[in-house]
Amino acid sequence: MKNMQVLLATRPHGAVEQSNFRIIESEVPAAREGEFVVRAHWLSLDPYMRGRMDDVKSYAKSAVVGDVMVGTAVGQVIESRNDKYKVGDFVETRTGWQLFGASDGGGVRKVDPDYVPLSAYLGAVGMPGVTAWIGLNEHGRPKAGETVVVSAASGAVGSVVGQLAKLKGCTAVGIAGGRAKCDYVVNELGFDACIDYKAGALDAGLTAACPRGVDVYFDNVGGRILDSVLKHMNAFSRIPLCGLISGYDDPDALAVRNFRSFLVNRTQLRGFICSDHLDLWKPALKELGALVHEGKLKYRESIAVGLENAPAAFIGLLKGHNFGKQLVKLI
Amino acid sequence: MKNMQVLLATRPHGAVEQSNFRIIESEVPAAREGEFVVRAHWLSLDPYMRGRMDDVKSYAKSAVVGDVMVGTAVGQVIESRNDKYKVGDFVETRTGWQLFGASDGGGVRKVDPDYVPLSAYLGAVGMPGVTAWIGLNEHGRPKAGETVVVSAASGAVGSVVGQLAKLKGCTAVGIAGGRAKCDYVVNELGFDACIDYKAGALDAGLTAACPRGVDVYFDNVGGRILDSVLKHMNAFSRIPLCGLISGYDDPDALAVRNFRSFLVNRTQLRGFICSDHLDLWKPALKELGALVHEGKLKYRESIAVGLENAPAAFIGLLKGHNFGKQLVKLI
Repeated sequence: MKNMQVLLATRPHGAVEQSNFRIIESEVPAAREGEFVVRAHWLSLDPYMRGRMDDVKSYAKSAVVGDVMVGTAVGQVIESRNDKYKVGDFVETRTGWQLFGASDGGGVRKVDPDYVPLSAYLGAVGMPGVTAWIGLNEHGRPKAGETVVVSAASGAVGSVVGQLAKLKGCTAVGIAGGRAKCDYVVNELGFDACIDYKAGALDAGLTAACPRGVDVYFDNVGGRILDSVLKHMNAFSRIPLCGLISGYDDPDALAVRNFRSFLVNRTQLRGFICSDHLDLWKPALKELGALVHEGKLKYRESIAVGLENAPAAFIGLLKGHNFGKQLVKLI
Repeated sequence: MKNMQVLLATRPHGAVEQSNFRIIESEVPAAREGEFVVRAHWLSLDPYMRGRMDDVKSYAKSAVVGDVMVGTAVGQVIESRNDKYKVGDFVETRTGWQLFGASDGGGVRKVDPDYVPLSAYLGAVGMPGVTAWIGLNEHGRPKAGETVVVSAASGAVGSVVGQLAKLKGCTAVGIAGGRAKCDYVVNELGFDACIDYKAGALDAGLTAACPRGVDVYFDNVGGRILDSVLKHMNAFSRIPLCGLISGYDDPDALAVRNFRSFLVNRTQLRGFICSDHLDLWKPALKELGALVHEGKLKYRESIAVGLENAPAAFIGLLKGHNFGKQLVKLI
């Protein structure tokens, strides 16, 4: 067996391109004392990876040119020199964009594929789900009867936000790109409404879907969608800011014009990332796992097959071509 | 004796002009049962009044065209048919831009000109001081050793923010327009530094004055100054948003481009107005009164003389021509 790795070849200028990556073949690593080796079954592709590709100040260190792309995978231990991990154990690890990786156990989580499907530990019962849980509960703090709006509503984070809001007795309104995603968000996920921002009537859609205004806007995108929602915020409303996918390639696209809304409505905006709240991961994962196990929390996956297709799938994710959690199937 | 009143004649289109006001002479009101009549000594001019002149959704009702301009004054009771207020009492009342006004006691505060000067109850020991106190303590929450930046630093609110920050053991950095204001902020008020935004080197000034970044930015102005400060925010920083004076006439001037900073730094922005926190006025005023009484909290006043000069003074305030709390002396 050979390992395959996707390296960061060059930093993007604007949109990410295939040429920013290089795929190489290498040896399967051997476990050193205290380590174990994981064969990855599923690789997670997430918008945050775009930020790592740049060499600018952010909440996490930049990826290093020439290194394996950072990322999280779920897989199975195939060799171990660590007492806590046995061959055959299923784990979530940060081994990056490669087929095999060695780990000393740092940041590793054991997972049980008999409780929820293995890939769910990268989505609704993983980092995206926890991100939704923390942003909504810690920063959004919706009360029953309030209106919660979420952008990228069919995505890995947004889909959990709206379903959790519904479970809390809120009105959940999604924003997504295209009719198919919006239909899914309403018909399958149970949101009260979903507005297709590509249809060109976002403002009118918000007026219709949020007749009592917006109490919580969980924002994954920033830019002109945020600007539109700002016109609809209620007094003392909250905006957990989770992502700015609209501006990764062009920071000017993130300019916010309706800034007066923050003062007029005494709105709170709070940028956050899930790793700021490590104390909340355990209760969040417990609740999310139970909800998926019981069939009360649904999710959808976009699956690329084969590591060699990871760059194209990632580029598609950044353009909104995915429909649900973007994964790469490796086995 | 005759009353004089300044009415809202027309709503401004862009910058406020003299023609938006009409000054009339009228009768001094008589107290009805339960009312008293106040002769105003000092009228307060405040940026929030600009918002009231527009007919758009805001946190307070718009002023009505043809009515007396809204506003707060301090003065003395000259006639009373209310048991709680005696002739000779000094009070702060919301009687607006006029020499004499009747009140039923709603929203009235008795004040003591022997404790601090009467005009201070419109500034450091009044609404602007409470605004500073609430924004800093409730939303800014600075810890000793942190860096607090405040815009409009020589103004009624900003001057209190920086001095309270110093009393808490913080580094206090002001932003103001012009050398004279900056010198005053540092030399008289005791800020650690003050940057003249009109000198054209705001960004470099912030780098020099805030070598450890900015933990709290108390913003009174919005727009391009906010955009510059956003580049300097620390992780988990807080931005109490108190005013947007840079954008009253032109909302486009409020566009914020460096929005990514909110996510990267997990910064919290919170619009607020002092009347959202009525429970905090009593402790705030007690502390502010004691500090002024003991000479530990300094302030400066810009005084226009005569109600007929209130419109010009207000127009100057909106352009930053005032230096400290803008008042109109009426007696």
